[in-house]
Amino acid sequence: MAGADMDPRIEEHARILVDWSTEVARGDMVLVRATPESHDLAVAVTRRATEKGALVMVTMQSDEVSRAFFDAADDETLQMVPRHARALADSVDVVISLAAPLNTRALANVDPRKMMLASKATQEIADIVLKKRWCVTVHPCRALAQQANMSLEEYQDFVYSATLIDWAAESKNLYLMKEHLERHTEIRYVGPETDLYASTEGRVWVASDGKHNMPSGEVFTAPVEDSVEGKIYFDIPFMFGGRVIKDVRLTFEKGLVVDYSAGQGEESLKRILEIDEGSSRLGEMAIGTNRGIKKYTLNMLFDEKIGDTVHCALGRAYEECNGRNESAVHVDMIKTMHEGEVIAGDEVIYSHGKYFFEM
Amino acid sequence: MAGADMDPRIEEHARILVDWSTEVARGDMVLVRATPESHDLAVAVTRRATEKGALVMVTMQSDEVSRAFFDAADDETLQMVPRHARALADSVDVVISLAAPLNTRALANVDPRKMMLASKATQEIADIVLKKRWCVTVHPCRALAQQANMSLEEYQDFVYSATLIDWAAESKNLYLMKEHLERHTEIRYVGPETDLYASTEGRVWVASDGKHNMPSGEVFTAPVEDSVEGKIYFDIPFMFGGRVIKDVRLTFEKGLVVDYSAGQGEESLKRILEIDEGSSRLGEMAIGTNRGIKKYTLNMLFDEKIGDTVHCALGRAYEECNGRNESAVHVDMIKTMHEGEVIAGDEVIYSHGKYFFEM
Repeated sequence: MAGADMDPRIEEHARILVDWSTEVARGDMVLVRATPESHDLAVAVTRRATEKGALVMVTMQSDEVSRAFFDAADDETLQMVPRHARALADSVDVVISLAAPLNTRALANVDPRKMMLASKATQEIADIVLKKRWCVTVHPCRALAQQANMSLEEYQDFVYSATLIDWAAESKNLYLMKEHLERHTEIRYVGPETDLYASTEGRVWVASDGKHNMPSGEVFTAPVEDSVEGKIYFDIPFMFGGRVIKDVRLTFEKGLVVDYSAGQGEESLKRILEIDEGSSRLGEMAIGTNRGIKKYTLNMLFDEKIGDTVHCALGRAYEECNGRNESAVHVDMIKTMHEGEVIAGDEVIYSHGKYFFEM
Repeated sequence: MAGADMDPRIEEHARILVDWSTEVARGDMVLVRATPESHDLAVAVTRRATEKGALVMVTMQSDEVSRAFFDAADDETLQMVPRHARALADSVDVVISLAAPLNTRALANVDPRKMMLASKATQEIADIVLKKRWCVTVHPCRALAQQANMSLEEYQDFVYSATLIDWAAESKNLYLMKEHLERHTEIRYVGPETDLYASTEGRVWVASDGKHNMPSGEVFTAPVEDSVEGKIYFDIPFMFGGRVIKDVRLTFEKGLVVDYSAGQGEESLKRILEIDEGSSRLGEMAIGTNRGIKKYTLNMLFDEKIGDTVHCALGRAYEECNGRNESAVHVDMIKTMHEGEVIAGDEVIYSHGKYFFEM
């Protein structure tokens, strides 16, 4: 599973995670969250982080272990705070998560109520981790290849094409885009069946350049909640609760979804919109820039960063954008823009296959 | 790797670890140290511990991760205390280690000096764990089957025959033996090429009934250091530093080895005896009782517990026996006793295939 015949791309992936994403330095306590399937990447990350003078500890995140927990736990157990996991989170400087499930559907049929109880009990640990240097990535494995409709070899090429890129150059472009977007207080997506407007006054555009997500490649903000007007057609499918939803069309008035349809999974879309007050408003508007991602794979870590796309999320906004929309969910939906434009105030940010800095 | 088709023996193994060995109870914070190869047992242990109302966290112990650490670490890094691992150890009530390497020789060629530096830096963590409820076991995997000269299926039968036994009954016998041994202050092993004597005055016999080692099945003590006299022939091979040593013959005077030979690996035996002052004295004398272990496999967790055997260890004595011998090593050597006797004072404890309670 590792060693002399290790794919050199695994070592390169590890270098990006350690050197670029989390900037591991001497004396750092590093937590690597691995799975049995991402063991080899854990070895490579350990090697690189140790070269930097850090100490690595590896935990095993297994959906099958989690499934056993959910199946066996009573309510009292579900609501206990895992003090050992909290002590560990408190004591680390860096958290690197190497997702690679044995079976992407291992948790498919767990009672959502049980999941919510456990999620509340561990929220404080998630909050601790968000204050550290942290990054989430994927190690290519058979279960993810299967979900992406590819052979393992094809999926390896897919993942490394998306991640092993020049992040310094990508970062420069993203920060340039952030700078231009923040000169204006309005954003507009125009294209086939689409003309969506929002105010971004007082909001921050975040340049996501691979520090927390690997791969990344997007700029995102939270629109002013009541300002969203118009309609948009999302042509890229996505998953919610294990179901595929595609060809979503939404119409907004004063920030609220007033009309909707889906070519597939309309019932699921309806359920999303009815979850709470925030789930029928946008919490995010964003522009994807990663041209190393060649196609959608129903994995949001990748899909929302596809180059020449925009995406919007129903539900919870990110604090770092000064967003205020609150919701139990955050559901991203993506639109290709080869035939469209992104306009900020009076400035064309993207048009028909080109970002402004390529025009 | 798990789930519906899980070998029911894995679930039974988990029940023994959780219910008998570590007595997991509601509210316990449990740390499971797994490897990619022992993932399925980690799932089963999580299920059982969760049924008891405990919360399980799983870490990944990988010799290949450790190898990457040793290869990449400079001296400063080797000597750092892993504060995250210490915080985790501090915060748990129970530690269950599920050994199952991908390759038993992954650490074979690491510089021993590096290993010693890291071992010193992590000693305090090992000491913390020893104060918890802890247990070490093996999950059958291909690397261990290979080392044991068996197919995986044969090795599974071997492991479960040794572990899935009536530990309450075994415990009763072991405590009875401890009681009888502690009525006396002398111990003597007699048999082919063997007549070894030691004083056990002021020493404790420990009944090892599966609380810390699974499998277990031995009573052990630390002999009075200068009292060991006579000779012994160890007919079961063992490993030291990756080499097999067999047919060891030792002669003692006033506690010290004054003559030695080995049918194979005599150079390694010589090296052991020369490590330090304590390594040419006995730190342990013990009687193995586990008749579920059908043959030696060069894995001391099993070999020293084989029924109808005795073993002695050169080097470090255990505190819990009131032993005082100090050494950097503790090297166990085993002798079958079907043709021998164990005598405590004037009482025959074992003779020619029978323990006293079977006579």
